[in-house]
Formats: sequence, structure tokens, C-alpha cells
Amino acid sequence: MRIVITGGAGFIGKKLARALLARGTLMDRNGTVQELREITLFDVVAAEGLPHDPRLETVAGDITDAAAVKALIGPGTGGVFHLAAIVSANAEEDFDLGYRVNLDGTRHVLEACRALGEPIKLVFASSVAVYGGDMPDVLDDGTILTPQTSYGAQKAIGELLLNDYSRKGFVDGRALRLPTIVVRPGRPNRAASTFASSIIREPLAGEEAVCPVERDAAMYILSPRRVIQALIHAFELPAEELGMTRMLTLPGITASIGQMVDALERIAGPEVAARIRWQPDPRIQRIVAGWPPRFDARRARALGFEPDADVGEIIQAHIEDELGGRIG
Amino acid sequence: MRIVITGGAGFIGKKLARALLARGTLMDRNGTVQELREITLFDVVAAEGLPHDPRLETVAGDITDAAAVKALIGPGTGGVFHLAAIVSANAEEDFDLGYRVNLDGTRHVLEACRALGEPIKLVFASSVAVYGGDMPDVLDDGTILTPQTSYGAQKAIGELLLNDYSRKGFVDGRALRLPTIVVRPGRPNRAASTFASSIIREPLAGEEAVCPVERDAAMYILSPRRVIQALIHAFELPAEELGMTRMLTLPGITASIGQMVDALERIAGPEVAARIRWQPDPRIQRIVAGWPPRFDARRARALGFEPDADVGEIIQAHIEDELGGRIG
Repeated sequence: MRIVITGGAGFIGKKLARALLARGTLMDRNGTVQELREITLFDVVAAEGLPHDPRLETVAGDITDAAAVKALIGPGTGGVFHLAAIVSANAEEDFDLGYRVNLDGTRHVLEACRALGEPIKLVFASSVAVYGGDMPDVLDDGTILTPQTSYGAQKAIGELLLNDYSRKGFVDGRALRLPTIVVRPGRPNRAASTFASSIIREPLAGEEAVCPVERDAAMYILSPRRVIQALIHAFELPAEELGMTRMLTLPGITASIGQMVDALERIAGPEVAARIRWQPDPRIQRIVAGWPPRFDARRARALGFEPDADVGEIIQAHIEDELGGRIG
Repeated sequence: MRIVITGGAGFIGKKLARALLARGTLMDRNGTVQELREITLFDVVAAEGLPHDPRLETVAGDITDAAAVKALIGPGTGGVFHLAAIVSANAEEDFDLGYRVNLDGTRHVLEACRALGEPIKLVFASSVAVYGGDMPDVLDDGTILTPQTSYGAQKAIGELLLNDYSRKGFVDGRALRLPTIVVRPGRPNRAASTFASSIIREPLAGEEAVCPVERDAAMYILSPRRVIQALIHAFELPAEELGMTRMLTLPGITASIGQMVDALERIAGPEVAARIRWQPDPRIQRIVAGWPPRFDARRARALGFEPDADVGEIIQAHIEDELGGRIG
């Protein structure tokens, strides 16, 4: 089977590629386990830092170019992970770019899949940013979507499209609303949530980090390990278990910033936790306060998706996966 | 003020134009009553059957042509009623046409408004088809959107876009989810709901009508008179009364087909009601059963939108407005 990963140069795309290479197989839509013969990572730049593997291909291209996407997802493609997106703060600053990538790009992926003439599996990375504004204390699968950012609106639209294409039999889609991913490896990005990774990642690497929110700010989070597991699990779920509703919110854990810092101190010591500089930023505080902190993800749990046990497990996983077990 | 009505050759567009001409004014976004100097009806064909009035202009054009829409909604436009759409059954049959008109067309309207550089008022005709599938017995403003048709998905996407463009200050949008409009004048169209008008309209005109559903099938309906009132009321509502949520479901009444036919018999006599041929069609029955029959439209009522009193009032209004008070 040939698999395409859009946004393949991002950290989730690369981690997913590594996990798929290690696994070697994926279940196709008939429930047959298929050997993975080719994994194509598509992004604006060629993905770097990946192992040399004859099954791996990197393609640099533009998701806003319909012809490029159609050439990418050509005959022989057995499944797509559509991760490419302009992140929240960037989509908010550059309205046109956000819509071109996050809406038009998603339509190009859907159309390229449809052109294949059989409903291949398509896993779409959505976001809890589809929620916002006046929300109940605990959200669930029946909570109305009220995006308060262009990014959230674009993800909600992507879900509607994926659902409609799936209903028509053009694709076998699965949209996962991702919690905030903590701890992201690498450098800060343009997402408003980027600090939630920085306050763990940077101190562990011996660097200072700025925390722009108070200790009691709460976030709904999930580790990179669990996200990769979820993406693969979503791919392999039989279509009949999803039925007509192809979108679901992943189970995460709700943690306050204080809990995150306390866990960091417990695991890495007070001198590491002391590398956090508390410097409240009203703009970031306002954005974070607008995110849903608690979600009862009953549907996803019943379908076999699993959250992390606690913040400590998330930090330990980061130390193992990114730091070779060592704290700087 | 110059007003543009897309879908202007449709019956709602033409009724709206007549109502606006009779009214002569609309309140602009500063709360100032403005004289209506020009009303432009845009559609694939030029609107016919309208009174000669120097304020009225008809333009034939294609809503899927971004440049045509930008030329239509040019400098000097003070407001837009965006009614143009491919109806449900047609959008279901012709997937590409539905998305071109109902999604791309709506984006062209939004972009043309944005290009004006000031947030003009834009009233968008959405639909209760944004709901479907597993629904509560009584829907309300907090019910999650679960469209089960491409038309419903396209309307839900249009709402998300309108809301996001409004949040960004590009337009001052208002999306109204219309109940099934009964009694539509004219001939049956390609909407699955068309029979609900036919079973009243045709018998009153001395013709036979086929009813493809049973007496106990229930529908959420609104008269053409009330829709026109609602569109104008939505235009004039101050933006601050809508806040961040620019979509709302209009109050309608819930009536069974049996109640509709009984009211027809009461008003027009048994020989008129006897012109209905009962010929159940499982396909139509299934579609109608998938529509939400009951909606608690608290938000719209609080904002001053009004439903019809009962089915009798709806039939009487049709006899007055379309038949000159006479029953054929």
C-alpha cells in the first residue's frame, strides 16, 4: 500500500512516518493487513532528518495547487493522512493564506481522493479550535461548534466536507479533533499554544522559557506519542464503527499550567522548573481562556482511543523520545 | 442605498424586491433610515414579471464567476441579500454544481463584500437542512449541526464563513435558517419538500396534486409572507444584538400533513381537498422523516422574528397574495 502524508515535514508528519515505517503494515478498507510499500511525505519543503529507507519519499509542493495535489494522490494511493495546515495565529494574521491552505487545500485533497474512483481512507487532523466562546463547563460530542478563529472555522468546514464526501462514498474519511499537543519537539511555532510545550521543553534542555499565562490556566492536552497512535488507530477503524459521523474529539487530559510545572519539578528537579519566567501576556491569556479545557470524549473512548495517564507520563515520554532519556 | 439580491429571479427574491420597493427604505448599519435608490436582482436569468420601476435593475450572470460577482457588488452597494442556491435534491444529484454554486458562489459574495472595505450588511438564506440524522425531539439554538445532504453541508459551511467574515469585520452578516416555505407560488421545483406546497397550491387552483407522504408526517414550515418579513427584519437588526453568533433558526410552526389538508378542507371545502391523490413514495418519506420537525427558536423570537399563527393563516395568505382572494 502507498500512503501519502500532507504536512509531512511537520513534527507530527515525520513522527507518523517513522511509526509507519517501524510498523510496516496498515489495515486497508477491506480489513486486510497490507504491507506499506511507499510513504510519501508532502510539504512546502522536503522533510529532513528522516532515516534512509527505500519506502520513504519526500515531495516538496504546494497544497493550494490542485494539479499538484492530484498528481500526489494518484492511482495506487491506498490512504492519506491530511495534516497540512496553517496554524491558528498565522491563519488569524493572514486571512487569505489560511483559507487557501486550510480550506482550498483540504478540498484539493478530497477531490484528488475522489478522482481515484474508490473511497480510500483519509485521516484529517482537525482541532478543538472548532469550539470557543460561550461553552458548557464540560464539552461532549453533542456540543455545538462555535469557532472563534479563522483556523477553527476552517477546521470545522473541513470536517463538514470530509463528512459529506464520506457520505457520498467518495472517500472513507475520519476527522480527529486534536487537543493541544504537549510536548512538541523543536522550536516554538506561531500557534498561540506554543508556550505549553516551551515551558517543559526548554527547561529540560537547559534553556529559559517564558510562560505567558497564570498557573491556574487549564488546557486540554495530548502527547505526540498518543497523537501518532490515534492517527494510526483512526486509519484502521472499520468504516461501519464510525457510521455517518466522521468527526470525533480525541480523549486528552485536562491539566492546569501549575500541574504541568509541578510535574516538571517532580521529574526534573526545582532548578529545571526555575528556568520558567512568569510573564503574563493578556493577549495569550485571553486566547487560552477561550479554549475548551474539559471534554468528555465518550465516543472516541468507546472507539478505542486513549489519552495519556497524566502530565508526568507526557513529560517522561518527551524525555525518552526526544532527549535520549537525559535531562540537560 | 443600493441593494443586491442574488437568486433574484426566484420567488423569494422577487417577493423581497416588491416588498422593498413598497417600503422604500432600509436601515443602514449606523441605524440611519436610507432611501432605496437601486435594487439589483441577480440570477442566471433576468427576473421577470416585476413591476416597471426606475429603482429596479435585473442582471443575468453566474454566481460561480468571481469577477461577475465582484462587478455586481461594487462600490456604492449598501447591502446584499444572498439567496442564490442550488436546491437540495439538485445539489444531491449534481455534487459539483452544488459546491460550485452553494459554496464557491457564497465565497464570491463574501469576497466581493470584503473588497468594498466596509462591513456592509449581508443576509444569507440558510436552511434547517443543516440538521439531520439523530436529533433530539425538539431542536434549539444549541443543537449540533449534522447535515445529511450536500445542500445541508453547503449551508452549514456558508454559515461558518459568514460568521468568520463578520468576526473579522469584513462584512456584517446574518444567516437565517429557513424552515420549509409553504405555500410556494409557481410550479413544483426540485426540492424534496416541493409537495408540501403542491398539496395546497394545486387543489386551490383547481388541479390535482400528489402527496407522497402519510398524514402524520410533520414539517417545520413558514409562509412566504413571514420569510420576507424575516429577511428585512434580519437586515435591520443592529449588529450588537447578534454579537458573535450570526446564524439563527427562524421560528416556524410544526404541522402534520394531516393538519395542512384539514385546514385546506376547512377553508376551501371538501371538493378542493379531494384533489389530493395520496401516493406514498418511500424515498420522499425517508427524506422528510430525516428533517427536524420541531424547533424551539428562542433566540430568533427574542430578536423579534415571528412565525405564522397556524396553517390556516398560511393558506389564507396564499389565497390573498397569489389568487387575488379567489379559490379556483
